[in-house]
Amino acid sequence: MRAEIVFTGTELLLGQIINTHAQFLGQEFAGMGIQIVRHTTVGDDWEELTGAIREALGRAELVITTGGLGPTSDDLTMDAIAAVLGLPLVISETVCAWIEEYFDKRGQAVPESLFRQAYFPEGAMILPNPAGTAPGCIVERDGRIVVVLPGPPRELIPMFTDHVVPFLNKRLDRKSVWKFGVLRVTGIAEYAVQERLQDLGRLGNPRIGYITRPGEVYIRIAAQGHDTAEAERLIGEMAAEIERRLGEYVFAFDEEKVEETVVKLLVDTGYTVAFAESCTGGLVSARLTDVSGSSACFKGSVVAYANAVKEQFLDVPAAVLRQKGAVSRETAAALAEGVKQRLLTDIGVGITGIAGPTGGTAEKPVGLVYIAVASPQGTKVKEFNFSGRRFAVRQGAANAALKMLRDFLKAK
Amino acid sequence: MRAEIVFTGTELLLGQIINTHAQFLGQEFAGMGIQIVRHTTVGDDWEELTGAIREALGRAELVITTGGLGPTSDDLTMDAIAAVLGLPLVISETVCAWIEEYFDKRGQAVPESLFRQAYFPEGAMILPNPAGTAPGCIVERDGRIVVVLPGPPRELIPMFTDHVVPFLNKRLDRKSVWKFGVLRVTGIAEYAVQERLQDLGRLGNPRIGYITRPGEVYIRIAAQGHDTAEAERLIGEMAAEIERRLGEYVFAFDEEKVEETVVKLLVDTGYTVAFAESCTGGLVSARLTDVSGSSACFKGSVVAYANAVKEQFLDVPAAVLRQKGAVSRETAAALAEGVKQRLLTDIGVGITGIAGPTGGTAEKPVGLVYIAVASPQGTKVKEFNFSGRRFAVRQGAANAALKMLRDFLKAK
Repeated sequence: MRAEIVFTGTELLLGQIINTHAQFLGQEFAGMGIQIVRHTTVGDDWEELTGAIREALGRAELVITTGGLGPTSDDLTMDAIAAVLGLPLVISETVCAWIEEYFDKRGQAVPESLFRQAYFPEGAMILPNPAGTAPGCIVERDGRIVVVLPGPPRELIPMFTDHVVPFLNKRLDRKSVWKFGVLRVTGIAEYAVQERLQDLGRLGNPRIGYITRPGEVYIRIAAQGHDTAEAERLIGEMAAEIERRLGEYVFAFDEEKVEETVVKLLVDTGYTVAFAESCTGGLVSARLTDVSGSSACFKGSVVAYANAVKEQFLDVPAAVLRQKGAVSRETAAALAEGVKQRLLTDIGVGITGIAGPTGGTAEKPVGLVYIAVASPQGTKVKEFNFSGRRFAVRQGAANAALKMLRDFLKAK
Repeated sequence: MRAEIVFTGTELLLGQIINTHAQFLGQEFAGMGIQIVRHTTVGDDWEELTGAIREALGRAELVITTGGLGPTSDDLTMDAIAAVLGLPLVISETVCAWIEEYFDKRGQAVPESLFRQAYFPEGAMILPNPAGTAPGCIVERDGRIVVVLPGPPRELIPMFTDHVVPFLNKRLDRKSVWKFGVLRVTGIAEYAVQERLQDLGRLGNPRIGYITRPGEVYIRIAAQGHDTAEAERLIGEMAAEIERRLGEYVFAFDEEKVEETVVKLLVDTGYTVAFAESCTGGLVSARLTDVSGSSACFKGSVVAYANAVKEQFLDVPAAVLRQKGAVSRETAAALAEGVKQRLLTDIGVGITGIAGPTGGTAEKPVGLVYIAVASPQGTKVKEFNFSGRRFAVRQGAANAALKMLRDFLKAK
């Protein structure tokens, strides 16, 4: 099966955003054993868009499009596909109901323009959008398949994984099955991850790929089996081996969000938590509270940037700050214990470090971070060295803090 | 002048590397006022590669290729261009000498395969490679220009900047120039933005585009002029008109990051700031501290999720919480004033709202947020209604809080 992708969006041509879909879809299709032979990117322009779709359909049996599904006049993809395939656009009552429900919940009237998103080429299979109001769809015509996906990654990724992958796997009637697994690590550089896993990567099936992101390395396992059970067994064995070698750095598996795991564990155990953040500046609290329902276990945090705030709000002894420094094992412990006592929580987490780019010394370089977890069972402190820029050091420290908290709660 | 880019490399189709050239070249060409109308990516395959180059040359006057200039058998670009243009490949003695010199310096013999890199389509203008052994080139034929660039960014970027930009600027003798401007708004939905600007979008030049991101709408202006001054004047006039209509929602212009603007204004004015965050859960503090140098003006924050923390740490009166509710104008003001007094800063910012998806009522729906700025000149509170999911409401509230702080500081 020959496949092509048509990316749409003037912002891609102008370089205003980077095309991360190319990477995500490339890896997914490679993993499924479908060969993508061409990418085409065009702007929000009727002639260009219909031209690119028509040409792709002239060459390939499977064409994927991304973007251009919004309600505004420069969102043209659905119209373009209908025009190229010679199909009328028909309204979906189901999608109208979804849109109405979405706005009803918010106590708002539906803007009339939103109903543009309820029109699809006749006969299309509609793909629900769990993260927005614009559904995608799959249209089949004359032996060709067109998969229409939205532009925002947080809408495209779940729609692709939950609906397109099962559809294609079924449609292709394949002899073998591909499965995927992900381990996300923090506090260790990509080259060090690769060194420790070098011998595993050589086995071919499962195979391992790496993507470096700010504050983490994303390790992806792809395995092929005669059936789902075999592919999953291969993934499981490889994941277990990687965890054996890198377990102290692993903070999330597959689509897991470590902050969601932490909230779930806190709710299950009945523990409450508070954070005392220095170098992360509120990032850990922001990530935890991004989880709906976090108010059940999270009371609050103190972002203690200035030393005076560390002393006055969190009772970090002036002597510790003077003798050991604000970035030290002892200060991390005092931050964790201070916030736990002051906010009357079961657990306190303290984070202090040097995010850079300035402030590093030979003894305490940029990337050095101490994280402490204080609980009724005592206080545990760990030292980390994160590489990369300020943004990466802070993300890495947040990942590591949430991982320490998860590990503590799991051990309960 | 119509321009297209052909990216080559099977690794791009497989998602093994991300295409950063698309962003770099997109921005560079936009800046030069050359409109890129299509990107095509193909693998290291003779039929695909020659097909893509032939099609691009059939549509555009300027075609840029990247990648495929190495010495191995899957580096096919130079051969493909020569074949499509019907030109023989001829050896360049100059480039042979460069290659010999490169290896001489390293005391190594030249691998015979490297001399593949010394062949170019007849008549090509050779572009030196300051960071590798594979030069690029520019070929002109029948009124069309082909620019051939290497794949590695550290080779492509200087070659483009030092050789291609001056060539194109000279060659184009241009009649018009394109310029771009961006306004980012928060607290107003995309359809409402479009409604208020509908008549402007119809004028054609400048033209307006929209991108919805969590917590904001990105409004992009593109203008064409006879020269830079005219294009910039058109952008300026349109931006001023948009600001006149939507000023209360605009939080950033062009590449500006509002948190960087705030840190700069705080450092300039000598004011210090602290945040009391409820629904944003630390997000505003995290964004401010993402700016290097923020420690000069930011002392700390209290993430006051539980009402007890609002009362005990920030002196929000229990009666206010009981009578007006945690999400109210009065609580926002008390949070701002409390954190300002407790952390001894010049300015305190309080944020309280309903991020959702639960917790909304008919009277106080999801998306309702109050933000207060307390200063020695008194306290100002504003009400916002953000649309979208939890993530979008929180990002929107953070954008709005930073905007209010910026506006306050600018007025000083």
